[in-house]
Amino acid sequence: MERKIFIANTPLEKSLELFFKRLEKTDFCSIKTEPVNVLDSLNRITANPVYARRSSPHYVSAAMDGIAVKALSTNGATEISPLVLKKEEFLVVDTGDYIPVEFDTVIMIEDVNFIGETAQIIKAAVPWQHIRSVGEDVVAQDMLIPSLTRIGPYELASLVTAGVDKIEVIKKPVIGIIPTGTELVDKGSELMPPGQIVESNSRMLSALCDEWGALSLRHEIVIDDKEQIRQAMKAVLREADILIVCSGSSAGREDFTASLVEEMGELLLHGLAIRPGKPAILGIIDNKPVIGVPGYPVSANLIFTLFARPLVYMKQGITFPESQNLECYTARKIPSHMGVDDFINVSIAKVGGRYLCFPQARGAGVTTSLVKSDGVLCIKRGVEGLQAGDNCVVSLNRPLQLIDNTIITIGSHDLSMDILADILYKKHGLRLISINAGSMGGIFSLRRKETHFAGIHLLDSETGKYNRSYVEKYLPDSEWQLINLVKRDQGLIIKKGNPLHITSFKDIAETNIRYINRQNGSGTRILLDYLLNLSHIMPQSINGYNREEYTHLAVAASIKNDASDTGLGIYASARALDLDFIPITQEQYDICLLSELVPPKTYDLLMAAITSAEFHERIKEAGGYNLELNGQIIASGYL
Amino acid sequence: MERKIFIANTPLEKSLELFFKRLEKTDFCSIKTEPVNVLDSLNRITANPVYARRSSPHYVSAAMDGIAVKALSTNGATEISPLVLKKEEFLVVDTGDYIPVEFDTVIMIEDVNFIGETAQIIKAAVPWQHIRSVGEDVVAQDMLIPSLTRIGPYELASLVTAGVDKIEVIKKPVIGIIPTGTELVDKGSELMPPGQIVESNSRMLSALCDEWGALSLRHEIVIDDKEQIRQAMKAVLREADILIVCSGSSAGREDFTASLVEEMGELLLHGLAIRPGKPAILGIIDNKPVIGVPGYPVSANLIFTLFARPLVYMKQGITFPESQNLECYTARKIPSHMGVDDFINVSIAKVGGRYLCFPQARGAGVTTSLVKSDGVLCIKRGVEGLQAGDNCVVSLNRPLQLIDNTIITIGSHDLSMDILADILYKKHGLRLISINAGSMGGIFSLRRKETHFAGIHLLDSETGKYNRSYVEKYLPDSEWQLINLVKRDQGLIIKKGNPLHITSFKDIAETNIRYINRQNGSGTRILLDYLLNLSHIMPQSINGYNREEYTHLAVAASIKNDASDTGLGIYASARALDLDFIPITQEQYDICLLSELVPPKTYDLLMAAITSAEFHERIKEAGGYNLELNGQIIASGYL
Repeated sequence: MERKIFIANTPLEKSLELFFKRLEKTDFCSIKTEPVNVLDSLNRITANPVYARRSSPHYVSAAMDGIAVKALSTNGATEISPLVLKKEEFLVVDTGDYIPVEFDTVIMIEDVNFIGETAQIIKAAVPWQHIRSVGEDVVAQDMLIPSLTRIGPYELASLVTAGVDKIEVIKKPVIGIIPTGTELVDKGSELMPPGQIVESNSRMLSALCDEWGALSLRHEIVIDDKEQIRQAMKAVLREADILIVCSGSSAGREDFTASLVEEMGELLLHGLAIRPGKPAILGIIDNKPVIGVPGYPVSANLIFTLFARPLVYMKQGITFPESQNLECYTARKIPSHMGVDDFINVSIAKVGGRYLCFPQARGAGVTTSLVKSDGVLCIKRGVEGLQAGDNCVVSLNRPLQLIDNTIITIGSHDLSMDILADILYKKHGLRLISINAGSMGGIFSLRRKETHFAGIHLLDSETGKYNRSYVEKYLPDSEWQLINLVKRDQGLIIKKGNPLHITSFKDIAETNIRYINRQNGSGTRILLDYLLNLSHIMPQSINGYNREEYTHLAVAASIKNDASDTGLGIYASARALDLDFIPITQEQYDICLLSELVPPKTYDLLMAAITSAEFHERIKEAGGYNLELNGQIIASGYL
Repeated sequence: MERKIFIANTPLEKSLELFFKRLEKTDFCSIKTEPVNVLDSLNRITANPVYARRSSPHYVSAAMDGIAVKALSTNGATEISPLVLKKEEFLVVDTGDYIPVEFDTVIMIEDVNFIGETAQIIKAAVPWQHIRSVGEDVVAQDMLIPSLTRIGPYELASLVTAGVDKIEVIKKPVIGIIPTGTELVDKGSELMPPGQIVESNSRMLSALCDEWGALSLRHEIVIDDKEQIRQAMKAVLREADILIVCSGSSAGREDFTASLVEEMGELLLHGLAIRPGKPAILGIIDNKPVIGVPGYPVSANLIFTLFARPLVYMKQGITFPESQNLECYTARKIPSHMGVDDFINVSIAKVGGRYLCFPQARGAGVTTSLVKSDGVLCIKRGVEGLQAGDNCVVSLNRPLQLIDNTIITIGSHDLSMDILADILYKKHGLRLISINAGSMGGIFSLRRKETHFAGIHLLDSETGKYNRSYVEKYLPDSEWQLINLVKRDQGLIIKKGNPLHITSFKDIAETNIRYINRQNGSGTRILLDYLLNLSHIMPQSINGYNREEYTHLAVAASIKNDASDTGLGIYASARALDLDFIPITQEQYDICLLSELVPPKTYDLLMAAITSAEFHERIKEAGGYNLELNGQIIASGYL
């Protein structure tokens, strides 16, 4: 078992320099062009300046509807003594009509009184009035469009007008992408076996190519066989300007990319001091750049964006559009290793006049962190991380307009929050982002004024009532409102048909039944502890008490996929995944908001959405909910 | 001859309200959807929220390369007393591999020492370390993507990962476009007769549809025949969601659109209080919006953007992206009629720390004003216009990044300036925009500090020398430099073969020969006056002395197209249009710049471009130039 375990840790700037300096010695940087018909040139980039082939207008023409006359022949016309022009002294013209050489001016139709075949005018005309001269718009041989300019709608119209049929444009760079991995399948089924993974990275990278003006050439999936990968690389290199090998770039057993690059060309680098994306590979084969991107999608995206994007633009002769930067405050402590440039996808919302950024889940495998990303925060090497409240600069990948139209909820997770978000965005253009931090997390976020509202379901074990006592305790100095969203059924989620014959927590304690718990601070965890205490069950006697998930659906999915046997959660989650459910209690799920953070207009939209017919309908469809308190203000705190 | 001459003058806001209120009563606003395969869904917009069909990962998997073990079996391992795991006690796993139920944790490969078939470890493992739980990325039934969201690369990857094959997306609205006009042709030739116009508006509008996410359906050109237009409208209305009738919307003889809308449906409005675009038509036929856009391209673009763009986005259920606004100073007086909303395309450059906007030529037929437009300035009804130096807000249609990378030259026109602009942009990413205002206009712009430099060729009739005396006189309080760009041949541009046997100005005076002059303040006009004075010729004896063009090429084009017979201009223009040329003098064309306005880096790039081999080559190719002084500092002024 020969394994190369450690890979180099080259700093990012050095890697970029190494790669691009080396490429300068190849002919990669030479720009290829091709002719296209002007009508097919939309969004293409001009290779050379384009010159007008014809003037527009190419003849002297009327700029108004009216009559063409010789200015001299109109002398003397006044309101008191109108002048009558004979049939042969004028020509009726519409805008754009040719003005024959014998005429030199145009009188507007509004100023002409037609009498039989003659025309009466009441004012002398000035020469060349209401006449468009040749080339008023474009003169033949004018430089219409300079080099390296994208053809938009106006450029297109101008080219057509100026008689240009064909133009030379930059050839779109071709990016060859080879997905490798024996575990990969093109398309999964709902019953696909463990160990199989649906190949999605090449789809993402191809779509990015499209955005950057390049063509992608996706090779079919290649299994982890060195010779097969070699053949695929050879084949793709014949067609492509840039070669991307997906996955197989860590130091695992089946990682052949680095050694293939070394054998087929020049291996420049294996391993970067960045996170995620460390196992990247850079090389040159046949004078073409080769990039090995890691298998995890977040890493793949980062490496592709850092290294392939500049290549794609360079090959088109243009620089890429700068993304907008936004100064934010970090809402959380964001740890980072001193030794790496750390790239963190963040969500952003403006709360109380400050832009706050919230780091997404940082796992390199979490594609949803890309979907939810409003921008990227880079913590540079040598910096240990950011403290909550630190100032930072985020490079946006969504328009600021959307971020400014965003409200945020931090707290307990419930399916109804997603439905609320969908309705708010669809009906009112208001984006609601939600961060699952558990009910207590929500309360603390409100205390720190970093969320517009929080979803909470906190049982007061002394009174048996929900939420109010917690809010009063933790938010004593604020003006708050507690508004009911739903009541919902909590219970044990179990496998279909209840194969382990579970009926209550007593059946789980002191057995091998695999329980899946929720995180500390979540309302469901508090409920579990309350229920265990009622039944005099010690937490340690539950197998899996320390194994935590962050949402109800995650608990259900764990059971569905036989990673565990049961867990406490809401009915809607069990139903969504077609699992069975043992109801235990109905709890009150409220939202708590701080008046100072929610402007009246936003408050009204929120209330409208919460109490809307569509919300009610969709909630009923999900099942396990009760709307009797929906929209009611449960309690308020005044200063 | 029955003509409807006057059309209504409805204010813009009222027109928009009228149109959209009326549309609310139709089913136009109902959104159509269609299913697409996820792999074909890039850039489409979701009609409904999309839910994950499968968790990812859908099995418990290794998050690292290493060995899967049971945490309990590792207890007691330390550096001092390593533990040896037997073959059956561990499983070698790579990142992403399935972890069978009998194991519950993973030890990184770096921490394992393989000895034969056993594995030696030096640290006990914590349960569930380096393990990805089911649904770590996506949980089945999670709302992956809400309604009305554009599918980008990350959404696509996430959908593929979550086992979604098909999604319901918004159907692209179909915009039917009918170009009408007997004078229109699809494609012109270089010898096309006067009166013919190449139809370009439908190409521009189609390309705009593409940018806005709609499909365009272009009907072939229809001649000015009411029945034929009616049939075309009927046919297009069967397929399209929105109908656009191009041209034929003024009150000219062949303008049938308004009466057809009235006959076939409901005419809401004919005539808007805006400039350009006044003759627009709004109506409803078969519950579908119909817009008659004027024939002039700048008007057509404005009407289409104001009225069709909101429709296209509304039909997709989304709002259109706001364009960025920029506070500018007007560099020129911009007159406007009190009675209209006036939309003016402007160029923008940052000079001396201020953003200055320069109105483009305002003719509704000038497509180049759209091509050159950096943004649109709207002067509202009730405002008479702006004075030079007034503050105004421009709605940008180019990225600020490009505007910040722009330098401007105002002054005399020369073909070499276009070549310089092309080289600066191509080689250095620096955009050079130029405004033709004549040499004296350039000097005055420098005086007002509103241009980075000016191209000038001003003959001092007393000394016979160029430029320096003018600069010294008009810029006494500035630090300036005069740098030679080229010397160039000026002379009489005449028709090929010189059919009128012109040899000098003497042959033109007191004849019918049609002269075409340059505008007041241009160096060429000053040269003409100097030459006429030398020959004792009175300006009034030149037929056409008052007929002005603004560039050398425009003069040449006028002669080429027989709109005039001769004019003074540079050899390169005559040659570009294959005309003959009678050389009269060689003049010095310099650029004058103010040091305070041109940062050192820009100065260096400019000098590098002016003296580059490519500039020399392309100048020589144009002909009629002399580079003996190129790049030399002719004179400087110090404070």
